[in-house]
Amino acid sequence: MERWSELARPKTVVNHQAGVLTGSVLELKRRLRSGDLRVAVVGLGRIGLPTAAVFAEGGARVVGVDIRKRVVEETNAGKCAFLDEPGLSELVRRNVESGRLRATVEPAEAIASSDFVIICVPTPIDQMKSPDYSAVIAAAQTTGTSLRRGGIVIVESTIGPGIAEEVILPILEEKSGMKAGTDFGLASCPERSDPGNIVANMRSVPRIVGSTDPKCTELVAALYESALGVTVIKASNPKTANAIKLTENLYRDVNIALANEFALLFEELGIDALEVIKACATKYNFMPHYPGIGVGGPCLPSNSYYLIVEGLKAGNIPYMIRMAREINDRMPDHVVELASEALNDVGKTVRGSKVAVLGVSYKPGVKDIQLSPVERVVSRLATMGASISLYDPMFKGDRVFGFPVRRSLEEASKGADCVVIGTAHKEFETLDLRRLAKLTSKKVAFVDARNVADPKEAARLGFAYRGVGRKFV
Amino acid sequence: MERWSELARPKTVVNHQAGVLTGSVLELKRRLRSGDLRVAVVGLGRIGLPTAAVFAEGGARVVGVDIRKRVVEETNAGKCAFLDEPGLSELVRRNVESGRLRATVEPAEAIASSDFVIICVPTPIDQMKSPDYSAVIAAAQTTGTSLRRGGIVIVESTIGPGIAEEVILPILEEKSGMKAGTDFGLASCPERSDPGNIVANMRSVPRIVGSTDPKCTELVAALYESALGVTVIKASNPKTANAIKLTENLYRDVNIALANEFALLFEELGIDALEVIKACATKYNFMPHYPGIGVGGPCLPSNSYYLIVEGLKAGNIPYMIRMAREINDRMPDHVVELASEALNDVGKTVRGSKVAVLGVSYKPGVKDIQLSPVERVVSRLATMGASISLYDPMFKGDRVFGFPVRRSLEEASKGADCVVIGTAHKEFETLDLRRLAKLTSKKVAFVDARNVADPKEAARLGFAYRGVGRKFV
Repeated sequence: MERWSELARPKTVVNHQAGVLTGSVLELKRRLRSGDLRVAVVGLGRIGLPTAAVFAEGGARVVGVDIRKRVVEETNAGKCAFLDEPGLSELVRRNVESGRLRATVEPAEAIASSDFVIICVPTPIDQMKSPDYSAVIAAAQTTGTSLRRGGIVIVESTIGPGIAEEVILPILEEKSGMKAGTDFGLASCPERSDPGNIVANMRSVPRIVGSTDPKCTELVAALYESALGVTVIKASNPKTANAIKLTENLYRDVNIALANEFALLFEELGIDALEVIKACATKYNFMPHYPGIGVGGPCLPSNSYYLIVEGLKAGNIPYMIRMAREINDRMPDHVVELASEALNDVGKTVRGSKVAVLGVSYKPGVKDIQLSPVERVVSRLATMGASISLYDPMFKGDRVFGFPVRRSLEEASKGADCVVIGTAHKEFETLDLRRLAKLTSKKVAFVDARNVADPKEAARLGFAYRGVGRKFV
Repeated sequence: MERWSELARPKTVVNHQAGVLTGSVLELKRRLRSGDLRVAVVGLGRIGLPTAAVFAEGGARVVGVDIRKRVVEETNAGKCAFLDEPGLSELVRRNVESGRLRATVEPAEAIASSDFVIICVPTPIDQMKSPDYSAVIAAAQTTGTSLRRGGIVIVESTIGPGIAEEVILPILEEKSGMKAGTDFGLASCPERSDPGNIVANMRSVPRIVGSTDPKCTELVAALYESALGVTVIKASNPKTANAIKLTENLYRDVNIALANEFALLFEELGIDALEVIKACATKYNFMPHYPGIGVGGPCLPSNSYYLIVEGLKAGNIPYMIRMAREINDRMPDHVVELASEALNDVGKTVRGSKVAVLGVSYKPGVKDIQLSPVERVVSRLATMGASISLYDPMFKGDRVFGFPVRRSLEEASKGADCVVIGTAHKEFETLDLRRLAKLTSKKVAFVDARNVADPKEAARLGFAYRGVGRKFV
């Protein structure tokens, strides 16, 4: 975890020119067209960097702020660490070269000179699953200290409903000595992008804006519509905008949990869960979700808790949302059980077996192991005495979960007693099972925790097969 | 509850001609075209009658079997009780007139002369939420007694996975003295239609067929494809076909429960759940479901239990599916709480108040109160001492839940202290709140348990407003 709290101790810079809140939407659009509108983006991570880049591309003069010197230097050199985000590297390079995008470790001047300050810092959860808003609080403190009169602060970080109004707003008011709604604006415009497809999403998925006052909403909507070309939906207030963001992600988490619940049930009933889900998808009012190893990444495993904690504070118990998290968090253990059962089928124990785990990312095509469910599978198998051999095309040669990532699938699978598919990377979706069978031990278990392979082919080739929701073939 | 067990005691009729299972798909299609293919439909309810009618329209010679003399006589007179099913009356009349459709209370001859016997009897749940398969068991006994060699039995009734294989198949084999898969066929082809739109659905929604043997699957698929013009998806076996049907309905039940959970939470947080859900629906991977008074009808409140009981038997606990049922079943009580709160706002108690309940059907546009959640709202308010005044355009002049249904909205609402919207019938979707305000008491509560009205307009007109998920306006 980076020390975002460092953001809270900037030098103070004062800008006496009035900001965008005092002007009109037309004025804003004119300034954007003439390259004169200034935007600061606080946090240059997987959301912040593309946000900075798409606004620069859309005509704004953008300064990215980060506490990480390396990230700032990289950005100023026109480089981008997220090679798994299509179009991003080119976008960063082009806008740095043209001078529309630069980065700094010094927030004060960047904020003081900006019309809009967009906060894109992480909001993770701690070990007790409690939301950790320290980065967003630090960013608010820094922003408040240097915010110009008429400036607008936009929070893109995912936060619980009420956090903008009850936590961020008072900090901004106290640090700036100004009043929200009249002297400066505060809006929530939660990011709605899907890692691995962020640049395209930022220019196509409608945005949700909720502000402390209608004028601010109009201006923020005009900014996103004009610079990014997206539709903007105006929410009643920041808490509604944040509730929308959380509801859409929780819908996914709950439905993946439901798919996992069906999978566990259908394993017992000798029914193929994938066959069931694919057939259900032919009905007009069904949206398919798939069972698997669990849910990872920066969003889904955390987002529920932002809502749960606000519910509990208000005396409401969100039963299903909590249960969904517990079901999804239990899935890695189920994968370990499947591995143990499949090894048992070929007369082997986990202890002493070589287990090749293919894929460590939390989702396909993305170089990201944040809360990846593969980690628990690896650590439990290791604890049980397996010898772990990792492979992931995004992490070749790196060290992940305490183990080296092999250079090739061949190297990782050679002589394996058990192969576990951890991520549905394209390379594994098109896995040649016949070739795999030649690499591994003769008596070999195959646990398809992402259901990428054909169970019947796996069984035919002699693998002791287990899939999630398709134990019986 | 009709006494479907009477079906189990027919006279025995024997047909020595071999049935469709011994022939080819081409032969089946030829016989359908020439009007020579015979189909018996057991059960002429909301699914059975349209099933019989669409097969007759598709070229089959159809006999409908029912224990209810009135239904059989009505059908033979070309009449249909389901006036809320678009196109059905015309379809029944036309096919009875042409002689392709008739009905009988005597199952034996109908079954003995048929190539296909389609079972469409109800499968409700009892008070302990345990599936009641007595009607489908009786239908299987009757069918087995008269089934011809080579006949195919199709179960359209919703049943748990395994019930076809473990309950129905042994009954058919025992009663017929024949062997499934060789002497006769058994298939599950669960109905997938939505009440209020059944005829259109039967001709457009793909069907799922799972049989005891591949030949039978081919023939049943050919029957549905040729006679109804629908796509058929071939499932591995009957239990998978039934799992598919249940999974798609449980997806809906769980997601309505999730919408209700969000609604209860957002009421506490002062957020409009409807605003949230509509905004979420702008995201490509979100399917909207809406909160309300609860879930009724012949399918959703029961279907979960068919799966839960099979899960429990196999040692699996379907947590979310059970919790969803409990959340949805609790919603009528929440509506009573909202009514009590809204009345409190205007200084009144439930005791002594006149409560107009608009809508008793479990869903809009359908004349059906099976497990309607409105019943519990009405009975609890009555128990608390309210004077109940019902109105529903589908039930004018009838007696429902022990109360007379008024002839008009005006009559029901006159002088009311509280108006509760129980069903989103079209007449209530377009409700003129201004006119309503003139009819009711001046100090009046308005509980929109289906979220059909504009909360702001209701508040402006002086109603003490409550909606589900939008308590605060």
